[in-house]
Amino acid sequence: MKLISENRAFGGTHLRYSHPSESTNCEMTFAIFLPPFASKEKPVPVLYWLSGLTCTDQNFMQKAGAMKLASELGMAIVAPDTSPRGEGVPDDENGSYDFGLGAGFYLDATQAPWNKHYNMYSYITDELPALVENNFPVTKERALSGHSMGGHGALVIGMRNPNRFVSVSAFSPVANPTECEWGKKAFSHYLGEDTEQWKAYDSALLLASKTHSIPLLVEQGTSDEFMQEQLKPQALVHGAQQSDTQLTLNMHEGYDHSYFFIASFIEDHLEFHAGHLGLI
Amino acid sequence: MKLISENRAFGGTHLRYSHPSESTNCEMTFAIFLPPFASKEKPVPVLYWLSGLTCTDQNFMQKAGAMKLASELGMAIVAPDTSPRGEGVPDDENGSYDFGLGAGFYLDATQAPWNKHYNMYSYITDELPALVENNFPVTKERALSGHSMGGHGALVIGMRNPNRFVSVSAFSPVANPTECEWGKKAFSHYLGEDTEQWKAYDSALLLASKTHSIPLLVEQGTSDEFMQEQLKPQALVHGAQQSDTQLTLNMHEGYDHSYFFIASFIEDHLEFHAGHLGLI
Repeated sequence: MKLISENRAFGGTHLRYSHPSESTNCEMTFAIFLPPFASKEKPVPVLYWLSGLTCTDQNFMQKAGAMKLASELGMAIVAPDTSPRGEGVPDDENGSYDFGLGAGFYLDATQAPWNKHYNMYSYITDELPALVENNFPVTKERALSGHSMGGHGALVIGMRNPNRFVSVSAFSPVANPTECEWGKKAFSHYLGEDTEQWKAYDSALLLASKTHSIPLLVEQGTSDEFMQEQLKPQALVHGAQQSDTQLTLNMHEGYDHSYFFIASFIEDHLEFHAGHLGLI
Repeated sequence: MKLISENRAFGGTHLRYSHPSESTNCEMTFAIFLPPFASKEKPVPVLYWLSGLTCTDQNFMQKAGAMKLASELGMAIVAPDTSPRGEGVPDDENGSYDFGLGAGFYLDATQAPWNKHYNMYSYITDELPALVENNFPVTKERALSGHSMGGHGALVIGMRNPNRFVSVSAFSPVANPTECEWGKKAFSHYLGEDTEQWKAYDSALLLASKTHSIPLLVEQGTSDEFMQEQLKPQALVHGAQQSDTQLTLNMHEGYDHSYFFIASFIEDHLEFHAGHLGLI
């Protein structure tokens, strides 16, 4: 691991690192916030935050306003990048924002040329937690949250790995990617044309498929410009009803897709995860 | 005024506008956060925030984490841009970050070609408050704060206009610009070579010149990479001692010049101003 930068914040420390990744076959960057007094003797649990399209490890750390309460709760936060990057990593042929660099969709690609690098599912589920737990004063208690494409990633990874994450939440998630243009474009490239293979990465379908016991919390703004076409929160409600899974979906009048929405409600999510992480 | 964007945030509203400015002879952009329930019947006081070199109206609104407490306190926040901009506005000949666009230094330039547009002192002191008070549900009670170059601007404008601002604060201000490279470069261009003319824009010298009654609060991180060469907080202490003016300067071990520092302590400043604005 290579230290990129270090800032004191809210009595704790915000650090950025890069490291070679086996999952993605490239150098990956992530940020970690360590609260005050985190030490080998008193390790802290970790909230992993998955960002949305076009983001890096920096958006959440700079804009969400999460560090104050994380500092008070004694919770670390890890924010990975949203895709592999660097020379040799293929990108959308038109450089579009919704596929390729900055748009890894938190899946393991099966199709060439994407499958050499675009393996964010394995990176988030296994490689990054192992790296973090080997190098920082943290426990193996993990929670997971994210926004938009990262809300999709959080819900999918959380529901498929309830043994690895104690709770999962999302802001404005791409809830039913097999049925929206962002998802169809990404999945057809990364996973191929067999739509059966897509279902393992669709949180609404995963939710409908069986009763899940991992605690699930979702926020959605009603003035979100992507809600009807791309996010489809109603598919989550439908899925939860089919499987009799408990889901909390909070709709917020007038809020949009921006970080102003995330910042307005992030503390509710930190408290939700803190409860499941045994911090409160 | 032309509305650029609108986001709901913390129960209130974050708005961005552009408007033609008489002071700066160009189109200016500013952001305003209005807390919940601000109305003509219940107007709220305003904290003006002056940003640092290279910033726009957006940095503070996105990164400072100030809206939560401002919402609870019932305080509006206005964040102007840091310089005139647009076609015909002259810039540093090398495009440097520390002079010209993004670097108006909150003064009224006297030297051509700068004096046609670079009149941020008049813009912040008179024009912008008048515009804001004519168009939003706010009172004429104003507080002033800022960071780095904006900390310089806040201290200078606040001390010179105690009838217009009830309290002034700064993070990591350029406290003694007549004695640092950033200040010398900017002042020699905007104000000319007569260094007597510079003194009206140096907060350490203003502080030393007479006893000031406007409440003053300053935060400074000890790991700030600009502290010794550009910021010179010790000059403020020296000035306050000479004039017997009350100044609170808090030094914070290990904090740097970034927004992580501002975010860590912004709520202390909101509470300081709220006290003087009669909100608490």
